[in-house]
Amino acid sequence: MSFIDLNCDLGESFGNYTIGNDEAMLDLVSSANIACGFHAGDASVMDTTVAAAVERGVRIGAHVGYRDLAGFGRRAMAYAPEELRAETTYQIGALQAFARKHGSAVQYVKPHGALYNTIAHDEAQAQAVIQGIKDADPNLALMGLAGAPVLEWAANAGLKVLSETFADRAYTAEGTLVPRSQEGAVHHDPEVAAAQAIAFATQSPITSVTGSPIMVHADSICVHGDNPAALALVKQIISELNAREIEVRHAD
Amino acid sequence: MSFIDLNCDLGESFGNYTIGNDEAMLDLVSSANIACGFHAGDASVMDTTVAAAVERGVRIGAHVGYRDLAGFGRRAMAYAPEELRAETTYQIGALQAFARKHGSAVQYVKPHGALYNTIAHDEAQAQAVIQGIKDADPNLALMGLAGAPVLEWAANAGLKVLSETFADRAYTAEGTLVPRSQEGAVHHDPEVAAAQAIAFATQSPITSVTGSPIMVHADSICVHGDNPAALALVKQIISELNAREIEVRHAD
Amino acid sequence: MSFIDLNCDLGESFGNYTIGNDEAMLDLVSSANIACGFHAGDASVMDTTVAAAVERGVRIGAHVGYRDLAGFGRRAMAYAPEELRAETTYQIGALQAFARKHGSAVQYVKPHGALYNTIAHDEAQAQAVIQGIKDADPNLALMGLAGAPVLEWAANAGLKVLSETFADRAYTAEGTLVPRSQEGAVHHDPEVAAAQAIAFATQSPITSVTGSPIMVHADSICVHGDNPAALALVKQIISELNAREIEVRHAD
Amino acid sequence: MSFIDLNCDLGESFGNYTIGNDEAMLDLVSSANIACGFHAGDASVMDTTVAAAVERGVRIGAHVGYRDLAGFGRRAMAYAPEELRAETTYQIGALQAFARKHGSAVQYVKPHGALYNTIAHDEAQAQAVIQGIKDADPNLALMGLAGAPVLEWAANAGLKVLSETFADRAYTAEGTLVPRSQEGAVHHDPEVAAAQAIAFATQSPITSVTGSPIMVHADSICVHGDNPAALALVKQIISELNAREIEVRHAD
Repeated sequence: MSFIDLNCDLGESFGNYTIGNDEAMLDLVSSANIACGFHAGDASVMDTTVAAAVERGVRIGAHVGYRDLAGFGRRAMAYAPEELRAETTYQIGALQAFARKHGSAVQYVKPHGALYNTIAHDEAQAQAVIQGIKDADPNLALMGLAGAPVLEWAANAGLKVLSETFADRAYTAEGTLVPRSQEGAVHHDPEVAAAQAIAFATQSPITSVTGSPIMVHADSICVHGDNPAALALVKQIISELNAREIEVRHAD
Repeated sequence: MSFIDLNCDLGESFGNYTIGNDEAMLDLVSSANIACGFHAGDASVMDTTVAAAVERGVRIGAHVGYRDLAGFGRRAMAYAPEELRAETTYQIGALQAFARKHGSAVQYVKPHGALYNTIAHDEAQAQAVIQGIKDADPNLALMGLAGAPVLEWAANAGLKVLSETFADRAYTAEGTLVPRSQEGAVHHDPEVAAAQAIAFATQSPITSVTGSPIMVHADSICVHGDNPAALALVKQIISELNAREIEVRHAD
Repeated sequence: MSFIDLNCDLGESFGNYTIGNDEAMLDLVSSANIACGFHAGDASVMDTTVAAAVERGVRIGAHVGYRDLAGFGRRAMAYAPEELRAETTYQIGALQAFARKHGSAVQYVKPHGALYNTIAHDEAQAQAVIQGIKDADPNLALMGLAGAPVLEWAANAGLKVLSETFADRAYTAEGTLVPRSQEGAVHHDPEVAAAQAIAFATQSPITSVTGSPIMVHADSICVHGDNPAALALVKQIISELNAREIEVRHAD
Repeated sequence: MSFIDLNCDLGESFGNYTIGNDEAMLDLVSSANIACGFHAGDASVMDTTVAAAVERGVRIGAHVGYRDLAGFGRRAMAYAPEELRAETTYQIGALQAFARKHGSAVQYVKPHGALYNTIAHDEAQAQAVIQGIKDADPNLALMGLAGAPVLEWAANAGLKVLSETFADRAYTAEGTLVPRSQEGAVHHDPEVAAAQAIAFATQSPITSVTGSPIMVHADSICVHGDNPAALALVKQIISELNAREIEVRHAD
């Protein structure tokens, strides 16, 4: 029986503000990207989310982000590399404390939002994150955009890497994401998204936006659960994966 | 040769704002209470301060505080215990990451400002901090006000404790601090403060505000270096300690 | 035809976090307590909420709070009066700019959460808020807890006051709120809450928790709309008010 | 007797953190750019700074910035225009309240740091700031970089504009600032800086970095006082201005 890892952004509630569908998603996915209090999340939310993930055997990742709660970490920011490096270590360290409390460990780091997009291609910020991860624990993996330079930079720096794909995003013939600003960037048809997930899970070619078959290597597929349609899509994907005897779990 | 530990609050700069005299104080003290980003400090400052402490063999403590940068952690706040517990763990975890980065470890926790004062006597907040420390690492010591109930609560919970005294604060005949609102609360005469420090270091009685001799057990003496007079006082204390063959260092 | 003012806390969303049922409530109430960015709300939310209130002729109040987004302004904080005074002026000023933008004006100030509760009885913080309001605009009214000393302090300082009551909270025989920690503090029966609202609106006695009739003067009744049951209660109260030819509007 | 306006960034202290030399600078300059709590400053500091400016007849400007205290507003941020517009109005409104309290009024807006640099050339953010100013008060002037497109955009939108120059920065032959990354960008020689200030004040050509004479129109010259050398330069400039019977004051 083969397997594929599904990851989801979780623990993004803050203080009196609750968002997401964390309990439901933790029942479905195998990896949890847990916000660390900079773009979202707070100490209590981290504690609760880690506990719920550990209880279900879900792998714990540090979802580090820019220090921008008002913008939810979605605004590009011109960070000095040394500050970004230190903030990466800080956020990971805070989450590690909760993981240890609950008898587990942080296993990977997935940057969030604008930081995720920036480091995919910006080497100065990417190296800051890579060094910040190594400062915290050189055995952590970096999860990033499949095909993006950041994964090569991380591997060259000695980090394990996890390449991430998206079931509901269209890919160009070159294997990069079709920008959201372009028509057809998102697969709104659940059948198409599920089929793409199956292709990733079975290491088969997917169909690019131009119709050509392309191979995109996926260590993990990112899914979302913040609305009923998204949650239904995840369940459909899992159902189709299971029908093909593909288990949702992460590599050891 | 006997010894006494001197501790100082450090790493309280933030972003573009620089305060304190960290390098000078790290040359003098044996324990550094390093702010963790809630009441003061930021990730870069923590990194730099930990590195400078490790370089000098200065013991690293987590100076955890209320989430109140605008008030510098000096305003009492009615925290829910569960949130305070989680924020304690979070702050310690963040500092631990920098300590590990620099080949060292956090060895104790000293709460800051209003949190320090509140937990001295408020059991709900005290137990939250105690549990938050244990969640992060049960081998950490809690440094707190000599004679205050918090040290007993912590010991009963299985934590190591470090009782802290002040060279320049007057004590009542009962061994508690004379409140700052009362006349004579602070020893402005460096000679008196230095003599009191010597008494703590030699486990001799000090003179209370009423003139009676009292014994106050000190595992550490808190000193400050944020103005020239304070820095001069620390140097005078150390000089007088050394003249009596008392070394400034912490217990192992 | 007589009338009664209904007020509601609104504009408490923040960045990516949405809470409340603002559009629905603005269709029902006559006064909007709009958060000013300290305990909740942000500039965009304030702008949108003011615009929606002005469009409906709803009176605009500044819902000032402690600088504690993580605690939603619900944690008591030991503010220095001068800082609280300045922060009160700051928050009002920010909201005034949006009111002017939309051709309207802030007409009253209602403190939020822990600040509301503290100033009801704590004169130092109350006077700080009162002076902070006068600094911003001496023609603003202060809305506060009916029967609490703060209203007298404000009136003595020359401010207009608006006494506020709660349809769903039980009152003691002395006319104060039954503390939430006590049994029977909240009227869970919509009939009872609606009847109490009618009594306030018709300046009739309400029934205290001990069964005795008491008079509580109400310039405004506070209602909530953050869950379906609360929203239904507001609609029931309004329906019963209208059945008695009592209009929901504020005094001019 | 002719005159020239000198402006300075002030009110940038925050909570327990004090920076700048505000009292000394307010004795020297004619316009005060007062931070509004987003990149620096807080309500108490704003109150105190406005009071000190009004006392000396110094013109009050709103020094609006990005919501980035940790970065002191110096990091470029990819704001949504609607949020930037609302935050501009918010910050101005807050400062207006303190100006009114002290019997004065905000007269202009000068964006800070990364926002200043971005709007000089980025029309989307520039228009957001321009609209945010008009929302707060269409009679406010926008102070911006002499020669930059933002001043034309603001004028086209109906705002008064104030073009700002720098005594100690070199200009290209085209009248733009020599980037700080290039050699010779800053005039370290006080004589050269003072001479350039005199040229601005007398509407005479200055000498560009290539040696050619160029005309740069200056409604105001920006000066700094955050270190002894900077303060000395300001005093020298003023002394040389006065020797030529040029008064330091703003246009009415």
